[in-house]
Amino acid sequence: MSKLEQAIVAIVEVFEEYAGKDDKKSQLSKAELSELIQSQLSNGAFKDKVAPENIKEVMDDLDKNHDGEVNFGEFSKYVACLAKGFYKKKHGDDKDKPRRNK
Amino acid sequence: MSKLEQAIVAIVEVFEEYAGKDDKKSQLSKAELSELIQSQLSNGAFKDKVAPENIKEVMDDLDKNHDGEVNFGEFSKYVACLAKGFYKKKHGDDKDKPRRNK
Repeated sequence: MSKLEQAIVAIVEVFEEYAGKDDKKSQLSKAELSELIQSQLSNGAFKDKVAPENIKEVMDDLDKNHDGEVNFGEFSKYVACLAKGFYKKKHGDDKDKPRRNK
Repeated sequence: MSKLEQAIVAIVEVFEEYAGKDDKKSQLSKAELSELIQSQLSNGAFKDKVAPENIKEVMDDLDKNHDGEVNFGEFSKYVACLAKGFYKKKHGDDKDKPRRNK
């Protein structure tokens, strides 16, 4: 498997691990999401992204269909946002860079 | 680093690797995207997702700001879609499952 495929499989496996704790295996409850964030995003690069006190905010933001749960589609978009934040932190925001003409 | 953090870092690194081939290091050109897809998504689970002939379609779909390039934000959303497709393939579409009442 390639590096990108392994990353995608890992994202699915992390979701399955935490969503599988209660009987609704295909959804993250608020408690499961909170546990996932605290244990999987404790590294400095991500920690400021999600301070424990604003997990409710993250939950409301993710839970697009407002069923009080986060499904995999909502979770994968969240991971995409985290990745974007990480990339920007690493490279500085594109807007900071002078536009190079083609 | 946690499993999720490693996956996020890997997604950033794959983008950097392929976007870095020309002078616009923060964007994937069509050629770079095509090379990334063919070498990073050749595994069975993803292969049907992106047949080489519809890479133009993927490019048009990703290139939301129509600058002919794919930036990291657009790429990370694409990865989120791939992950969602992989999850659905693995678990069958949620809609197939009977709704359990709370």
